[in-house]
Amino acid sequence: MRKIEHIGIAVNSLEVSNEVFAKLFGAPAYKMEEVASEGVKTSFFQNGPNKIELLEATSPDSPIAKFLEKKGEGIHHIAFDVEDIVAEIARLKSEGFTVLNETPKKGADNKLVAFLHPKTTNGVLIELCQEIR
Amino acid sequence: MRKIEHIGIAVNSLEVSNEVFAKLFGAPAYKMEEVASEGVKTSFFQNGPNKIELLEATSPDSPIAKFLEKKGEGIHHIAFDVEDIVAEIARLKSEGFTVLNETPKKGADNKLVAFLHPKTTNGVLIELCQEIR
Repeated sequence: MRKIEHIGIAVNSLEVSNEVFAKLFGAPAYKMEEVASEGVKTSFFQNGPNKIELLEATSPDSPIAKFLEKKGEGIHHIAFDVEDIVAEIARLKSEGFTVLNETPKKGADNKLVAFLHPKTTNGVLIELCQEIR
Repeated sequence: MRKIEHIGIAVNSLEVSNEVFAKLFGAPAYKMEEVASEGVKTSFFQNGPNKIELLEATSPDSPIAKFLEKKGEGIHHIAFDVEDIVAEIARLKSEGFTVLNETPKKGADNKLVAFLHPKTTNGVLIELCQEIR
């Protein structure tokens, strides 16, 4: 793990929250992207070496819709940048972590991603992500 | 705001969670520190340009004890590194954010810190922090 690639924040409305985070960072989102397979629309803000990803649900059965229903708006996950996601999944499994995606899947922002179950990481949903070259 | 300085994670036991995060990062905490004024013991992990701060309550009326009671273990706050915390507080107030500490206070890790109320930041507790020079 080389850095925090991004923090994912669940929001009710990208339109409203894009304004909030643009004021916070003093710069607008540099990208918006829909990930149909995950049922989300996303926007990305750059902050030095890190990003903030806002996530709005596009269908009532998306994981973000369920999160918002249960917990309301707030931090959904932390994503760490990894060099080799397959090797990192193997390493973390051998350390006793529960990996939710044995095979990495295609995520937003041109990344291969895999998640660790929060029960093995102090209640924190952790994403591994590797840039697709 | 120049980068994510750290992510603060509330935990029931530093002893237990230090092991979890050492396995996650493949390296142990580089520092432990008690902040008596906040009723917390902390440990810090480096991850490239960013840090993870684990927080354990040392008294039942500390904000971390209340957070754990209400929500359980998980992400407590995001801290952004700022060049000039006084100027940043003024800028964010003028943008309509509710700043909880009009005057920055001394935090862990040799920092001046101030928090933004989550009600104005999509449910996310945001900390500004400036290295004390």
